[in-house]
Amino acid sequence: MTRPVGAWRLQLRAGDAVELPEFLRIARAIAEDARSGRLAPGARLPGSRELADTLGVHRNTVLAAYRELSVEGFLETARGRGTFIASALPEVKAKRWLPASSQRPTRARLAARPGFDFPSTPAAIPFSPLPPRTLALYGGLPDTRLLPHDALARAYRRALRGRVDLLGYGDPQGELRLREALAQMLRVTRGLSVRADDLLITRGSQMALALLGRVLIRPGDRVAVEAYGYQPAWRALSEQQGVQRVPIAVDAEGLVVSELAAAHAERPVRAVYVTPHHQYPTTVTMSAARRMELLALARRERFAVIEDDYDHEFHYDGRPVLPLASADDGGNVAYVGTLSKSVAPGLRVGYLVAPEPVRKAALAARFDLDRQGDRVSEHALAELIEDGELQRHLWRTRRVYHARRDHFVRALREQLGHQLTFETPQGGMALWVRAARSLPIGAWHAEAARRGVLFQPGQLFRYDGRETQYARLGYAALDEGEQSTAIARLGEAAAALAGR
Amino acid sequence: MTRPVGAWRLQLRAGDAVELPEFLRIARAIAEDARSGRLAPGARLPGSRELADTLGVHRNTVLAAYRELSVEGFLETARGRGTFIASALPEVKAKRWLPASSQRPTRARLAARPGFDFPSTPAAIPFSPLPPRTLALYGGLPDTRLLPHDALARAYRRALRGRVDLLGYGDPQGELRLREALAQMLRVTRGLSVRADDLLITRGSQMALALLGRVLIRPGDRVAVEAYGYQPAWRALSEQQGVQRVPIAVDAEGLVVSELAAAHAERPVRAVYVTPHHQYPTTVTMSAARRMELLALARRERFAVIEDDYDHEFHYDGRPVLPLASADDGGNVAYVGTLSKSVAPGLRVGYLVAPEPVRKAALAARFDLDRQGDRVSEHALAELIEDGELQRHLWRTRRVYHARRDHFVRALREQLGHQLTFETPQGGMALWVRAARSLPIGAWHAEAARRGVLFQPGQLFRYDGRETQYARLGYAALDEGEQSTAIARLGEAAAALAGR
Repeated sequence: MTRPVGAWRLQLRAGDAVELPEFLRIARAIAEDARSGRLAPGARLPGSRELADTLGVHRNTVLAAYRELSVEGFLETARGRGTFIASALPEVKAKRWLPASSQRPTRARLAARPGFDFPSTPAAIPFSPLPPRTLALYGGLPDTRLLPHDALARAYRRALRGRVDLLGYGDPQGELRLREALAQMLRVTRGLSVRADDLLITRGSQMALALLGRVLIRPGDRVAVEAYGYQPAWRALSEQQGVQRVPIAVDAEGLVVSELAAAHAERPVRAVYVTPHHQYPTTVTMSAARRMELLALARRERFAVIEDDYDHEFHYDGRPVLPLASADDGGNVAYVGTLSKSVAPGLRVGYLVAPEPVRKAALAARFDLDRQGDRVSEHALAELIEDGELQRHLWRTRRVYHARRDHFVRALREQLGHQLTFETPQGGMALWVRAARSLPIGAWHAEAARRGVLFQPGQLFRYDGRETQYARLGYAALDEGEQSTAIARLGEAAAALAGR
Repeated sequence: MTRPVGAWRLQLRAGDAVELPEFLRIARAIAEDARSGRLAPGARLPGSRELADTLGVHRNTVLAAYRELSVEGFLETARGRGTFIASALPEVKAKRWLPASSQRPTRARLAARPGFDFPSTPAAIPFSPLPPRTLALYGGLPDTRLLPHDALARAYRRALRGRVDLLGYGDPQGELRLREALAQMLRVTRGLSVRADDLLITRGSQMALALLGRVLIRPGDRVAVEAYGYQPAWRALSEQQGVQRVPIAVDAEGLVVSELAAAHAERPVRAVYVTPHHQYPTTVTMSAARRMELLALARRERFAVIEDDYDHEFHYDGRPVLPLASADDGGNVAYVGTLSKSVAPGLRVGYLVAPEPVRKAALAARFDLDRQGDRVSEHALAELIEDGELQRHLWRTRRVYHARRDHFVRALREQLGHQLTFETPQGGMALWVRAARSLPIGAWHAEAARRGVLFQPGQLFRYDGRETQYARLGYAALDEGEQSTAIARLGEAAAALAGR
């Protein structure tokens, strides 16, 4: 609307600014007029009551606008004489924030090459968002569409509203409130006898592994890993100079402990990294016998067992197997968990449980990495647990993923049963399939990608990086309809190859 | 309220559950009755319409409650025959989430000592929140009370509501939207010719330094640091095996470049870490001459200059000095910035600007540390910048902190001018003061702490860790009233010492 104020008319535009509180819209409109010159420096503004009447708003709104403008440097108030446009506008500052186009940077471009010796760099991770309508059968991706978004938003809002101090510095170990909630969860669902103080909250399990790589592994050490596994975990654990990784075979019972024993006898390993619950990527659940063997060996030979229990919650056939850590009396296990699968990867919340000296060393290392976690998300998460919201979410998603596993297995057998062989995993979010010679994985992957379906060839997970006829197909993030479409396209891709 | 439903009466309690949506309150009440046995397994529930009438709610609310209960496993629906309490309740799961007291953990306690050889650990950082009514004169703490909390909460809400995918995996380099907003800010306020792609978003400046320590510094290298400085930065840069730190003196013009040149001539340094804008902790602004000297030396001798511009925004006397990076044509500067001071430390958002190969190596290292940043906060921040909210906040806080500096300087001179000498810093958030012999810092610090005022003795920042008569007094986080109280207590503490 436009209303006369003396000679000057204040125009309040609707549009993008409409989201702003009234007083800010008024303040901006006045600042705009001051910048454009419609209000000259030194010009006297109408009294707050007068402007309030003409705009049909409460006087306090106008006073708030004037206050805002004076702290921003647009107005000067002379006691008793009134309110004036500042003689020197904060024009410079204002200009500084104009679109880049209107700027003249000091130099054409940032120097492309460093002015100092620099080792050949590892290729940076190429990041490209999925093309629209692509269906990704990536392992370990939860379906974030199932999240209780309102509850999550409510929890964030409360954390932000309630506690100004959450935006300040906090406990590098993680917010006590979240550690208490998680400790209880671990006690009652995983048989871990832990208290809040036994936990270190990290940025996802990746940071927990990076910390262990720093405090457990010394330069020149040997670290045993599963011969099929997760490369970023391997890198995190062998980051120190000259660390040697020792791949250990995995079979239908999980890690082949006898092979580990042999490798250790040859030359001692400092630690072994395992994923016993649902081996990554083969989905195998480690047998009870192997578990006992492994713990006994570690205890006798005094090496560390790094247990990555990344998707404990998603076990469908029978009860989840308790982690190695729950049976570890010797203090050999460093236990790593995450909320990336059970809640969302984007939250970047994981945790480490380990004997005190290890935990303290990890805490010190963590402080030097990023000081502390995200206190707001940590409180929001704690609230979701306290309210039982997370538990309900887990019950819900467990059922949903269970059904999706069964549907995926059925549809895959119908569609590609003659070319794919696989075991139905007891839990997790993916299948590990073996393709017949007639279906070369590499070519199949390419054909599928052309049809808008992505999956992960086994080669990605193989220690020696060699080609393999295995592939990992994640099913949890796709609903039944999407699964059927994806599998149909996989079938077309296979047919296209056969047709050649 | 209590209303009859056949023999069974559903009781909806108010109280803590009142925050929950209606359908969940109903679902919980029914689940409770099922657990308590008031509703036996197999018991038939009233039809949704009937229960809706008795409770005086919409039928859809009851249907939602029933849906929730069946996904949770409390209800079974037999098509056409109605809704029944499940014959097997999810009792186990429910029990698992009872208070810890009611649990019997598998073992008494987590093993206290590791079952493997472990090096003597560095002392973990003791974290203890400030005692109530304590006034902390800590340097570099912004006043989070000044934050536009509603705008911040609004921005978070939008990020959470608008984009489910933000809770999934994202770009390890940082959200493009935030990098674009920051790149423009750096172009127009700091004369850096950068685009979104030149930035790597990190978890505060600490992570940026940790990454540089990993990719720039090699085992056995020499790294030059300011003889007074920030210990976590030193640790982050000398984390690799056998890295030697070389302390370089700081005077009224900042780093003494001639001393750096001499040290480098003796044995080359790989990099130098500097805080030129407001030297940490001495608050000195590096002179133009020294800046040119330093860049020329780095270019000629081909070493890296790590510039930490942690509080660029807060410069009060004259315009902020442009960073070294803005004049770096040789690609010698790795520029580190943060939003910890300008917005809030709790957000943990910083950034790195460096020549492409360095940035790419840092990106790869970052991926192995924590995969990616917090996408929700990154979008919320981007929105604050796009809306001009951050700029307004900076104009506001710059004025407030400027006034607080002047008030603090005045009050401190009045109260302790005879025992303290200091320069008024051109900017920043703290003073660097020298105490007369009559006022031994250590004893003064202890007396002040007893009176509920905390400050940082210069010893904490001194490379050799020796005692010193200097101290750092942060003023930005306290308003004028709090400053007066704090300074009065500092005076009492000093008097108490004199009185001895």
